[in-house]
Amino acid sequence: MAHSIWKDYPSIDSKLDQTTAFIHSSVKIRNTEISQMIIDLTSGGKMLRPAFFLLFSAFGPDKKQNEELIPLAASLELLHVATLIHDDVIDDSPLRRGKPTIHTHYGKRNAIYAGDYLFTLYFEMISRFSPAQKDILINSLSMKKILIGELDQMLINYNVDATAKMYIREVSGKTAELFSLSTEMGAIISEADEKIIRLSKNIGHDIGMSFQIIDDILDFGDSQTTGKPNFEDLKNGVYTLPYILGLQDKNEKLVSILSGTNLSDEMIQEAADIVSNEGYLDKAKDIARTYNQHALRRINLLPNGKNKLVLKKVVKKLLDRIK
Amino acid sequence: MAHSIWKDYPSIDSKLDQTTAFIHSSVKIRNTEISQMIIDLTSGGKMLRPAFFLLFSAFGPDKKQNEELIPLAASLELLHVATLIHDDVIDDSPLRRGKPTIHTHYGKRNAIYAGDYLFTLYFEMISRFSPAQKDILINSLSMKKILIGELDQMLINYNVDATAKMYIREVSGKTAELFSLSTEMGAIISEADEKIIRLSKNIGHDIGMSFQIIDDILDFGDSQTTGKPNFEDLKNGVYTLPYILGLQDKNEKLVSILSGTNLSDEMIQEAADIVSNEGYLDKAKDIARTYNQHALRRINLLPNGKNKLVLKKVVKKLLDRIK
Repeated sequence: MAHSIWKDYPSIDSKLDQTTAFIHSSVKIRNTEISQMIIDLTSGGKMLRPAFFLLFSAFGPDKKQNEELIPLAASLELLHVATLIHDDVIDDSPLRRGKPTIHTHYGKRNAIYAGDYLFTLYFEMISRFSPAQKDILINSLSMKKILIGELDQMLINYNVDATAKMYIREVSGKTAELFSLSTEMGAIISEADEKIIRLSKNIGHDIGMSFQIIDDILDFGDSQTTGKPNFEDLKNGVYTLPYILGLQDKNEKLVSILSGTNLSDEMIQEAADIVSNEGYLDKAKDIARTYNQHALRRINLLPNGKNKLVLKKVVKKLLDRIK
Repeated sequence: MAHSIWKDYPSIDSKLDQTTAFIHSSVKIRNTEISQMIIDLTSGGKMLRPAFFLLFSAFGPDKKQNEELIPLAASLELLHVATLIHDDVIDDSPLRRGKPTIHTHYGKRNAIYAGDYLFTLYFEMISRFSPAQKDILINSLSMKKILIGELDQMLINYNVDATAKMYIREVSGKTAELFSLSTEMGAIISEADEKIIRLSKNIGHDIGMSFQIIDDILDFGDSQTTGKPNFEDLKNGVYTLPYILGLQDKNEKLVSILSGTNLSDEMIQEAADIVSNEGYLDKAKDIARTYNQHALRRINLLPNGKNKLVLKKVVKKLLDRIK
């Protein structure tokens, strides 16, 4: 069953179920335990990237059949999950979607290879099902931007001189690129014109930026709701937007705490309190809202139809998480 | 300058230099240190996979120009180096080609992403320069087999019941697949007929199997020559062919040592001595020689020409490492 956010949209809901089934039937490795963990990781998520791809595949003149749509929807989720698995090894995260991560269960060896294996499945699906070779190139260039974003993150980690500009560049790659690939590929597959393709890509970018900033903000929430422990980002030296806004503002207390090494739980709590109490968290919320509004304004320019209405509702709903 | 094994073959030598230059000009990441480490890792190696690709590109009727050959030769080396980087994180290897590994210098975060980044560069080159979409699919299926081979390795690690059959299946994926992809793509790019393509692929497989077994045997040699510390494989629970032949033979002393946990240096030396003194190392050498002979017999079936002669010499030379 697809995630409950899709329950009001039966057509997308059903396509996402088919996407999940397609992914599960594609995972073929002899090690049944790792195979099972990959299946778990590709079950029950919100599947935003395949969903946006499917939603945007209605904006061109050529409405493709499920046989052509589902494998490409699946490929986007596979690329996403591959990067998740590697991120979890890198951050040593104990939990993902409330369950133990692959590397906690089977060690980093298998987690790294499992991520690599999903990259290859992604690559296979794209090669097999892309309508044209140029679409494969679009995918590969996006995948490269995502990785460059991940590498750029290192310029921010543990860097008290990080700026919002550096953050935006990093997140444009790390997170927003996969959203914009999804919406762009949706428009391309339906043979939309150049203008709609570019518009779709920009909408994906706005959604992705907003999504990542909301995710940063949720790290301040309680771990029950998010399924991952609190302040994980900061513990790993990952400075998210609320902290970066404080650092850029040269907030002395914050700079002084974060300049220390081996932060204690108390210091982490203190840093988080500064960010909450001195308005940086609210400012980050404003920025998330602004990206969300950009997305909505651009969605208004899309051709009218059912999917446009669904998109508006879903994009608004993403903001609910930080209300 | 390409590796000295190519010095007698100026045409390949020059193409390999161009391949290296092409790789270096393609690495574009903001972090100059990681960029430099990737450049170091793609300099000075034997470049066997691009070399075999280039050698096999002479066996069909259509001799392609360097502009078409070099990027595909580069892609094969990139795929190889990407898997090397991940292997080194996984095995926690301190050295690669006599230099500190990326993860020792910059931590596993950057090593994992650097490997991922090279996967994306590989994917980009294949998408951009493959003559047809079906060749991209051939590449992606090979990449998948390589990863499945890596995952299969886990069934052998620390497994005293591992058999030669399991080993051969694993190495067919992990190592031989990339050699057979290289030789197959060489034949394909020159528009050789189906029979020559299949023959080329089989030759690549034989060379790859022989190459990996020789590598296993070299782990018994001294660390000065190989540029990596001794008995690294066994320390990581990686049972290579010589050990597996002993285990399959139910050699009691060997089984008893390897059944223990946390092997001391003395126990590792003792296990290695058993394998050397009781003929298992020699048996592994025989198997490497057999694969090498298979390759040479098949090379004889290729169309005559300069590259056929070069191939014979190079394949024979690979065996010299265990003389």
